Amino acid sequence: MPMQKIIFLIQCNDRKGLLAATSHYFYSRGFNILHCQQHSDTRAKRYYMRVELDLGDLKTTRKDLREDFAAFAAPLELTWECHFTDYRSRVAILVSKTSHCLYDLISRHHEGDLVCDIPLIISNHPDLEFISDRFRIPYYYLPIEQDNKSAQEQKIRELLKRHDIDLVVLARYMQILTPEFTREWTGRIINIHHAFLPAFQGANPYLRAYERGVKMIGATAHYASEDLDQGPIIEQDVVRVNHELTPDGLKQVGKDVERQVLSRAVQAHLEHRVIIFENRTIVFSAER
Amino acid sequence: MPMQKIIFLIQCNDRKGLLAATSHYFYSRGFNILHCQQHSDTRAKRYYMRVELDLGDLKTTRKDLREDFAAFAAPLELTWECHFTDYRSRVAILVSKTSHCLYDLISRHHEGDLVCDIPLIISNHPDLEFISDRFRIPYYYLPIEQDNKSAQEQKIRELLKRHDIDLVVLARYMQILTPEFTREWTGRIINIHHAFLPAFQGANPYLRAYERGVKMIGATAHYASEDLDQGPIIEQDVVRVNHELTPDGLKQVGKDVERQVLSRAVQAHLEHRVIIFENRTIVFSAER
Amino acid sequence: MPMQKIIFLIQCNDRKGLLAATSHYFYSRGFNILHCQQHSDTRAKRYYMRVELDLGDLKTTRKDLREDFAAFAAPLELTWECHFTDYRSRVAILVSKTSHCLYDLISRHHEGDLVCDIPLIISNHPDLEFISDRFRIPYYYLPIEQDNKSAQEQKIRELLKRHDIDLVVLARYMQILTPEFTREWTGRIINIHHAFLPAFQGANPYLRAYERGVKMIGATAHYASEDLDQGPIIEQDVVRVNHELTPDGLKQVGKDVERQVLSRAVQAHLEHRVIIFENRTIVFSAER
Amino acid sequence: MPMQKIIFLIQCNDRKGLLAATSHYFYSRGFNILHCQQHSDTRAKRYYMRVELDLGDLKTTRKDLREDFAAFAAPLELTWECHFTDYRSRVAILVSKTSHCLYDLISRHHEGDLVCDIPLIISNHPDLEFISDRFRIPYYYLPIEQDNKSAQEQKIRELLKRHDIDLVVLARYMQILTPEFTREWTGRIINIHHAFLPAFQGANPYLRAYERGVKMIGATAHYASEDLDQGPIIEQDVVRVNHELTPDGLKQVGKDVERQVLSRAVQAHLEHRVIIFENRTIVFSAER
Repeated sequence: MPMQKIIFLIQCNDRKGLLAATSHYFYSRGFNILHCQQHSDTRAKRYYMRVELDLGDLKTTRKDLREDFAAFAAPLELTWECHFTDYRSRVAILVSKTSHCLYDLISRHHEGDLVCDIPLIISNHPDLEFISDRFRIPYYYLPIEQDNKSAQEQKIRELLKRHDIDLVVLARYMQILTPEFTREWTGRIINIHHAFLPAFQGANPYLRAYERGVKMIGATAHYASEDLDQGPIIEQDVVRVNHELTPDGLKQVGKDVERQVLSRAVQAHLEHRVIIFENRTIVFSAER
Repeated sequence: MPMQKIIFLIQCNDRKGLLAATSHYFYSRGFNILHCQQHSDTRAKRYYMRVELDLGDLKTTRKDLREDFAAFAAPLELTWECHFTDYRSRVAILVSKTSHCLYDLISRHHEGDLVCDIPLIISNHPDLEFISDRFRIPYYYLPIEQDNKSAQEQKIRELLKRHDIDLVVLARYMQILTPEFTREWTGRIINIHHAFLPAFQGANPYLRAYERGVKMIGATAHYASEDLDQGPIIEQDVVRVNHELTPDGLKQVGKDVERQVLSRAVQAHLEHRVIIFENRTIVFSAER
Repeated sequence: MPMQKIIFLIQCNDRKGLLAATSHYFYSRGFNILHCQQHSDTRAKRYYMRVELDLGDLKTTRKDLREDFAAFAAPLELTWECHFTDYRSRVAILVSKTSHCLYDLISRHHEGDLVCDIPLIISNHPDLEFISDRFRIPYYYLPIEQDNKSAQEQKIRELLKRHDIDLVVLARYMQILTPEFTREWTGRIINIHHAFLPAFQGANPYLRAYERGVKMIGATAHYASEDLDQGPIIEQDVVRVNHELTPDGLKQVGKDVERQVLSRAVQAHLEHRVIIFENRTIVFSAER
Repeated sequence: MPMQKIIFLIQCNDRKGLLAATSHYFYSRGFNILHCQQHSDTRAKRYYMRVELDLGDLKTTRKDLREDFAAFAAPLELTWECHFTDYRSRVAILVSKTSHCLYDLISRHHEGDLVCDIPLIISNHPDLEFISDRFRIPYYYLPIEQDNKSAQEQKIRELLKRHDIDLVVLARYMQILTPEFTREWTGRIINIHHAFLPAFQGANPYLRAYERGVKMIGATAHYASEDLDQGPIIEQDVVRVNHELTPDGLKQVGKDVERQVLSRAVQAHLEHRVIIFENRTIVFSAER
C-alpha cells in the first residue's frame, strides 16, 4: 500500500529565509519532509513551494494542523492549501458528442493513474450515455434549448453542488460557460482546447491549421476563465503533421494529443502539483 | 461515407521502368491512382510500392482483377498483396493482467480510428474479463498450467482459426510463443515490447532502465518472430524521464508510450501501409 | 562521389493518368526514375510531384531536355521546375546582431550538409563581421539611417543581383522588407520567426510567451511575403519549457529551435524538396 | 551584469531534517537561498541537493566558507562541492576527424551559452586544425602510431595538467581511453556516443540501426568510465527516422542529435547541475 501524504501548496511574495522558516516549522512539528519543491520567480518576485509530508507523522487532528500552520503562515503572509492524499477528489466530467477524451480519462481512472471518484457525467447531448452505462457512471443529459442556456447551466451547478464535486473537467464540452460559473469555480474547471494556444483560439482550429499550412498541431489544457481560451495554461503538447493531411486527418491525429494533454493536466491537478498565480501556472514535476 | 479503395502492396528487386509499367497497367485498366507511394532501397536494391485505387473504378470481379494482375506481375517477379477496404480485418487481442493497451485499442476501435472487427479477447488470466464484458466482446480464459503450455497455445490457434482471424495483437500478453505459432502467423502477430529495442530486450526493462540511469524510456511494436524481441519493428517512440522516477514511476510513465506505439502499429497494419522485407519494415505514411 | 541528379518539381490540377503519363515520359526518354514522390490534395484538387533522375542518363543538352519536357507539359498544363544537382545554388545570408543561426548555417555548409555557395553576408549592423572574417565570406555592412530604409534595401537588391543570388536567408535579420522586394523574390526568401506561428506574430514573442504562460515555445521558417509572418510555412518545431524560465531563459532555450528549424528549411529548399501553392507548402521528405 | 553565485552540490544518505538543517545553516550565515533543488531517491535511500546563493552575501573569505561548511557537513556525513560562478571552468576538447560537435561547442561558447575557457583542442588527426585556427584556439596534433598509444595518451594528460583543465570533452574523439586516464579524471570527462545507449554500444551504431530497422535514432552523452559506453548518462535524445534513410542518411540526421546532446550535457556540467552517485546522475533543471 502506498504511503499516505500531507501536501502543502504555498505561495507568497519572495523574501529571505522562507525555506529555512518553513522547513524548520515542519521539522519542529516532527514531520519528515519527503519532497520539497520550490520556485522563485525573480521577475514577479514571487515564491512558490510544494511540500510532501508523511501522513503517518501527524500526531494531532487535521483541524489542529491547519490552525497551527495558519498561525505560522499569517505573519509571513503565505497563501496556502493543505491536502491529505487519503481523501479522493470528486470529479465531474462534462462532454458533448466526442468520446476520445472521456475514454482516456475513464481508462486511466480504472488503472489507478487518476486517483479520484467520478460520481457523474453531464452532457448537453445523449450520444455518450452508452459509455457511461458501460462504466456504471450516472449520466445526466441536460439539453440546451433555445433561450434556456442559463437554466441548463444552473442545473449543472446544482448537480455539482449536490455531488460535492471538487473538480470539473470539460472533456470537449464545446460550450462557453457564463462568467458567474467560471468565477465561482476559479481554478477548479479544466478545459481542453484543440489547438496550441494562443494559436487558433476559438472555433474550427483544425480547419484553420490546414489553411495556414502549419507543420505541427497541438492541444492545450487550461483552467477555464471568463475570457474564452484565455485561462492559465496547465499543459500543452504538439504532434508533427505534413501536407498529406486534410482538415479531417488533422482532427484524427489531433485526438491523440488532446486526450493526453487533458489527462496529464487533470493528473497534475489531482496530485496537487499546480499553483496558479495571476494568469500563469507553476506545475511541479511528479516524483513517483 | 468515405470512398472504398483497392490497395496494392508490391515489392520486387529494383530495376528500370517499374513505376512506368505499374502506373500504365492501372491506367490501362481504367483505374485512377488516388495515391501512390514508392521506395527504392538503393542498398538492398529493393523496390517497394503502395497504390490506392478507387474501388468504384472496378469493372470486373475481384477474382478477375487478381488473376489479371498476377499475369502482369509474374514476368516482373513482383511479390504483391491486394486488399479491399470494404473488408474489415478480424483482430484477436491477447492480454495478460495489464489493461492500458487493451483499453486504448478498444476505445480507438469504438471511435472508428481502428477499422476492424474484434470478435474475441484471449487471456491466460481472468483479470480483464470485466473489460470484455463492458464492451460485449467474448473473453476466452485459457490458463497456462504446469506442462500444458503447448496445449494452451494449441487452443489459442484453434480459436484464431475458428474465428477467421487476420491479425493477432499481443497487448502485453507477456508469454513467449512457440516457433510453430510465429512461423504459421508470420507478419500477422504484432507485439508491444515495453522498451526502446534493441535496448533492454527481455524481462523487466523498466527496472533495468532505472539501474542504467537512462534519460528516456520507450516502447517498440514489432511483428513476432521466433527470436524474442527480434522481429521486424513497425513503430517506436520514447518519452523523456529523469532521476525523480523510480522503476514504478518509469512503468507508469511508460504506459502512455506503450499504448500509443501499439495502437499506431496496429492502425498502420490495418490500413495496409506496412511491407516486410527480411527483418525490416517499410511503413508508408498515412494520407487522410 | 555521390550520383548527380536531375530533379523535376511539378504541380497541376489533379486529373486521371498524370502518374502514368509522367513516368512513361521519363521512361521513353531513357531515364531511370530514382525516386518519385507524389501528393494529391483532394481538397484543393491539386497534384504535386517530385521526380529524381540520374543525370548520367541524360543524352541531350540540358536546353533540349527543358524544351522537350515543356512540349510534354503544355497540354497537361503542368507548372514545373527542373534542377541539376551539379549546380550549386548561391545563397546570401542577411543578419542583424544575433549570431546563432549564422553559425549554424555556416557550420552545416562547411560539413557538406548544406550544398550551396555563400558568396556574401549582408547586415545592417557591423557586429557579426568577425564571423564573416573567420570564414572568409565577404561582409557588407549596410546601415539603416533615418529615412534611408528604401535606399539601403535598394543596395541589398543590387548586391543580390551582382552576385547571382538564388536564395536569400534572413537569419534573424529583424527588418521588414518592402512589398517590392518580397514580390520580386517570391519563394526565394526564407525567414525565421522566433515563435510557433500563428502564435505570437510580431515583436517580442518570448516575452509574450512568458506572459501567456505557455508550456512550449517554438520557431517557424517560412517564405517571406508582403504580410509580415504570413508567408508559406516550410518548417516548425517546439521545445518544452516550464515555469522556471524567465523571458531571457526562454530566449536562450529558443535559440536551439530557431537554428535547427531555419537550417532544415534552407536544406529542404536547396534540395528542391519544396513546392509552394497559394499559401501552403508541400515539403517532400529526404531520401538519403 | 548577471549576479555571481555560490553553488553547493550536496549528497548523503537520506534522513530526517536535512533540509531544515541545511537551510538553517545558510540562513544563519546571512545567505539568501536563491534556488534550492532536492531529490530523495527512496529506493537508494540517498538525498541530493543543489543550493544557489548570492555571492554578494559572502562576508568571509572563500576558504573560510569552505572550512565553516566542512565543520557543519562532517557530523551529517555530507559529500559536497562548492563552486563560485565567477570562476570560469577550463575545458579541453578532444576531436578526431568529425567537426559537427566541435563547431557546436565553439559557437555556443562564443554566444555565451557555455560559460568556460577553451584553452586548447587536442586531436589524433590534423584534419580539424583549420577550425582551431579560425577561432584562435591552440591545436595539438598528437598522432597515434603503432605501439605508441599509451605514450600519446601520456602527452594528452600532461597537456591537461599544464593547462589547468577542469573538464575534458570527447567531441567524437573515437578512441578508447585507458583505465588510468578515466580513473584519474572520474566525473570530469564527457563523451558523446552516437546511439541511444544501451542500444548499439560499440562501433558502427548507424549501420547496426539500419540493419535492425529501428524507427528512431539517438545519441547519449555520458561520463567516461573504464568500461566503454558504460559510464553515468547525463543526457540523451532521439530523432524519428524511417525506411527512406540509408546508414549514411542516418549518420547525417544523427549529427543533429549528437551535437545537441553533447552541448546540453557540457552546459549542465559547467552550470554545476550534475551529481553522480554510483552509475547514475541527478541532473537538476536550469532556472534562468
